[in-house]
Amino acid sequence: MIKGRVTGRVWSSKHIDTLPGGALLQVTLEDGATLIALDPLGCDEGEQVLVTQGSVAAGYFTKMKASVDALIIGSIDET
Amino acid sequence: MIKGRVTGRVWSSKHIDTLPGGALLQVTLEDGATLIALDPLGCDEGEQVLVTQGSVAAGYFTKMKASVDALIIGSIDET
Amino acid sequence: MIKGRVTGRVWSSKHIDTLPGGALLQVTLEDGATLIALDPLGCDEGEQVLVTQGSVAAGYFTKMKASVDALIIGSIDET
Amino acid sequence: MIKGRVTGRVWSSKHIDTLPGGALLQVTLEDGATLIALDPLGCDEGEQVLVTQGSVAAGYFTKMKASVDALIIGSIDET
Amino acid sequence: MIKGRVTGRVWSSKHIDTLPGGALLQVTLEDGATLIALDPLGCDEGEQVLVTQGSVAAGYFTKMKASVDALIIGSIDET
Repeated sequence: MIKGRVTGRVWSSKHIDTLPGGALLQVTLEDGATLIALDPLGCDEGEQVLVTQGSVAAGYFTKMKASVDALIIGSIDET
Repeated sequence: MIKGRVTGRVWSSKHIDTLPGGALLQVTLEDGATLIALDPLGCDEGEQVLVTQGSVAAGYFTKMKASVDALIIGSIDET
Repeated sequence: MIKGRVTGRVWSSKHIDTLPGGALLQVTLEDGATLIALDPLGCDEGEQVLVTQGSVAAGYFTKMKASVDALIIGSIDET
Repeated sequence: MIKGRVTGRVWSSKHIDTLPGGALLQVTLEDGATLIALDPLGCDEGEQVLVTQGSVAAGYFTKMKASVDALIIGSIDET
Repeated sequence: MIKGRVTGRVWSSKHIDTLPGGALLQVTLEDGATLIALDPLGCDEGEQVLVTQGSVAAGYFTKMKASVDALIIGSIDET
């Protein structure tokens, strides 16, 4: 998994029908790159998160085919 | 997913038979790299899009085997 | 596989239910990049490890669906 | 998919038995990196091609298990 | 596939039980990066090899589940 911080959100009104509901969050990685991950957890901007990529991300969804390749799987505890 | 902008289109007359119909759009990412993604949505040049990669992209196609590893899954709302 | 060294651990109290139990170790690669891998072996900080990525990592888990894309598969012998 | 140009060919007399027949072409990407892709189309050196990577490349082969992760899926029309 | 040269070998006494037998060779790519690939062919240090990555590498093994994501599929003929 990769570690990143939620830095924004995007909306997509025009999308294919296999995009699951849920927020599409922008996650900024430690090297400054960004990706967009589906968030089933309700994370907030500024939260540090773990992202799983590839077919594993899509496999989280069992009731529908999901065309996503990035999924937030956890929020990292900050102490 | 990754975010990019449609910057062109390519055509391929000579191709394998498992390339689905649809536009092959060139998408330029934020770091300047480009990739070619199949577009089932009819996006225009200049549009900002979300791209899914890998086997998830191919899995979108249910009636045929599709040899694509990049698929535009949505157009990003710009406000 | 990629080779790296365990340089830390993260905790995630808020996570999806398909995150298997086990330590989430931070692994630093030779180029300085880091990733977070699930560790079924009980590795310690400073240990050099082999990491498998992608759907192969998730496939290690047979009794549950696992949403992980990075798995420590071995500790490298240091002589 | 990624776009590249055929810049050479490699031969492998000693190989595993799940390497399909066909030319193993060296493809140079726009950033100068190279990869080796199986070519089912008969492309020539200098030709610009589209390459699919990962399990999608292997999935093209239906009569045998194929241990390839890069496949030329089309030649790009140059006008 | 990617092309690289065998530059070493690693041993892992402590490993998960889905690591197949066979040498774990260090392969150095053209850009200087290294990865560790399972070698079913018996390659020697200095040999130039082709490496397949991802789930395709694991799929080579049919009698056991294999947690490897990099496999040497051929030795490149050098003339």
